[in-house]
Amino acid sequence: MISKWLTKVRAEKPLVHNMTNLVVTNSVANVLLALGASPVMAYAKQEVGDMARIASALALNMGTLDETLVEGMLIAGKAANEAGVPVVFDPVGVGATPYRNEVASVITEQLKLTVLRGNAAEIGVLLGAGGEVKGVDAASASSNLPDVMRNFARQHHCVVIATGETDYVTDGESSWALHNGHPRMTVVTGTGCMVTGVLGAFVGVAGPTARLKTYAEACVAALTCFNIAGELAAELSAGPGSFQAALFDSLFNLSETTVEEKQKISLMTE
Amino acid sequence: MISKWLTKVRAEKPLVHNMTNLVVTNSVANVLLALGASPVMAYAKQEVGDMARIASALALNMGTLDETLVEGMLIAGKAANEAGVPVVFDPVGVGATPYRNEVASVITEQLKLTVLRGNAAEIGVLLGAGGEVKGVDAASASSNLPDVMRNFARQHHCVVIATGETDYVTDGESSWALHNGHPRMTVVTGTGCMVTGVLGAFVGVAGPTARLKTYAEACVAALTCFNIAGELAAELSAGPGSFQAALFDSLFNLSETTVEEKQKISLMTE
Amino acid sequence: MISKWLTKVRAEKPLVHNMTNLVVTNSVANVLLALGASPVMAYAKQEVGDMARIASALALNMGTLDETLVEGMLIAGKAANEAGVPVVFDPVGVGATPYRNEVASVITEQLKLTVLRGNAAEIGVLLGAGGEVKGVDAASASSNLPDVMRNFARQHHCVVIATGETDYVTDGESSWALHNGHPRMTVVTGTGCMVTGVLGAFVGVAGPTARLKTYAEACVAALTCFNIAGELAAELSAGPGSFQAALFDSLFNLSETTVEEKQKISLMTE
Repeated sequence: MISKWLTKVRAEKPLVHNMTNLVVTNSVANVLLALGASPVMAYAKQEVGDMARIASALALNMGTLDETLVEGMLIAGKAANEAGVPVVFDPVGVGATPYRNEVASVITEQLKLTVLRGNAAEIGVLLGAGGEVKGVDAASASSNLPDVMRNFARQHHCVVIATGETDYVTDGESSWALHNGHPRMTVVTGTGCMVTGVLGAFVGVAGPTARLKTYAEACVAALTCFNIAGELAAELSAGPGSFQAALFDSLFNLSETTVEEKQKISLMTE
Repeated sequence: MISKWLTKVRAEKPLVHNMTNLVVTNSVANVLLALGASPVMAYAKQEVGDMARIASALALNMGTLDETLVEGMLIAGKAANEAGVPVVFDPVGVGATPYRNEVASVITEQLKLTVLRGNAAEIGVLLGAGGEVKGVDAASASSNLPDVMRNFARQHHCVVIATGETDYVTDGESSWALHNGHPRMTVVTGTGCMVTGVLGAFVGVAGPTARLKTYAEACVAALTCFNIAGELAAELSAGPGSFQAALFDSLFNLSETTVEEKQKISLMTE
Repeated sequence: MISKWLTKVRAEKPLVHNMTNLVVTNSVANVLLALGASPVMAYAKQEVGDMARIASALALNMGTLDETLVEGMLIAGKAANEAGVPVVFDPVGVGATPYRNEVASVITEQLKLTVLRGNAAEIGVLLGAGGEVKGVDAASASSNLPDVMRNFARQHHCVVIATGETDYVTDGESSWALHNGHPRMTVVTGTGCMVTGVLGAFVGVAGPTARLKTYAEACVAALTCFNIAGELAAELSAGPGSFQAALFDSLFNLSETTVEEKQKISLMTE
């Protein structure tokens, strides 16, 4: 039952601490409010530890990284780790420059991640499977990505997600292919970054002591709800501008019944 | 006559220097343009004093604060104080972390504020009346807030505003309860931050030598016009995404007649 | 044939590296996606050189400048110059503060620009022709601006553009007056900054070794396509909020036929 997760997010209004990029800050806040969660953005090293500790989840996104942000992310991430607060990491644009590669490695090594999410090229590059990144977009992906993702998930005891036309989710034991979504989601900036925030809300209501499988199910629910909202928004819109407004409207108005009816989730055999 | 203030803003197009947070920068600029004012954002210590001095008002918002921003706000605020330019301060998220408490205190002590605006929890925490802040949202407010606000306004000779389902405005002598607005305004990020910018435009056209009572009336007008635009936008929208676009449209198209017909303002007896 | 440039942008999806301001980051990314280009934002000195070198164009915008950003812009600009990547510079708010004047001069002197674009007041101030800037808006412009622009274009071997009700474009030899556009474009923040990004996409597909005249034609096409999208969006919208969404929709849906039918371009006699 995917939709029970949506109900839970709306009931508990989890506080999601986002350290995200300059392009999508507003969109991430708005998508979380439309979902029923409570977003907060905080970046200063003086407060990120305090904020992460009281949050239900911490969502880190390196889309417009710099030294100060990376320092803050590590402080926030370590505080979250100590407090058992789930951490979602989005290595935006890894593979595009050596600096992004270096920072993504540091964050992946120094923090205990609950969820690692990127597009297929980013995840492929970061996990050493190959793939090509053009700026912050996926140019091509590796064919053995599912195996590499599963291995990383087992080793690091986290959920790994590669989004694209089909989204892949694995916790190292179970893997899912998610088929909801719409091409128009790629013509609006930040839909990937938005889903990183949404993942924070869903794993946030799973709580600090959930099993990995439970986090994975929360992620499957988060992606599916967001992607169904994208499908509904595409029907209501005439282009990418009206699509973005319709995406927030559709997520706000999304019913549990619609989620159950429209979900397209396959458990992958290994 | 509330609507004469709206007419004055549209005629004079006041330059409002905003130092605001990363989540709402675009929304604050757009709300001021829709209103007929002229927004400018400037943050660098090399120029904020110069910009604040030529502005009609300075609006400070600590939603995503850091050391550099705080340093810049103090420089800009002191330049505005020296030049008689009204200063509006929005202590976003005060109460959420010790760092926010410290910064809000420093700004409140070192600058001569014309207007202090926050949600009821933020104002309660900052003025020592109590209240609970969850991230940047009000979780609960103190019952003796109106008294505490009035005392602070008298001591600091400024207008104090606590916004929420009802907005309270006081200059220490007169107090108003404002009943316009719509719940959908809470499902879009930054409506509070937008209103801080709008307050800047209205006190900006009151001029540098206005009496405190005149600034208070400008604030009552600003909040009422913005909240009526919110009511009209709610009727025109299907969710928070279409609401934000409709809010800018409604403020842009708001007529003086509509303001006079829809305003719900009570002068509070002490 | 203006529309062939639009076709070329959509086919080649140029990567445009934007270093832009905090107000419009999201809008610039979205306008480039709606156009069919591939935007990337990167600011850190550790990576801007790498990113600029792999981009099809670099678009620099000093709307919310600070020391770190300026340092980064110079690194990125020099890398772009070495790699032959076209550089577009938008001196937002030059004339408003001495710091902006100083930074605009430094960038203009130290970098080889392909395109310099601002509103008429900004260009007038920067090129010494006079004009008045209010915050980041044009208050008044110099009457001998076309001559001064032409001289600067010749001396610096670049395209100079002053946008406003009529847009002027010159490469020092040929000059154009562009008459498309709509007043509603001035009631949404960042339409000027968006067009700077759009110019990046069009000169990006002209390639690194194009003649100056070819870059100028790409600029004429960029401005005309964007302005026609603005005209179409005005017809579809009820105010500035719905206008912004309609602008992205209209650019996304803009046909080559519409561009050819609606274009209003005059070659100016010297």
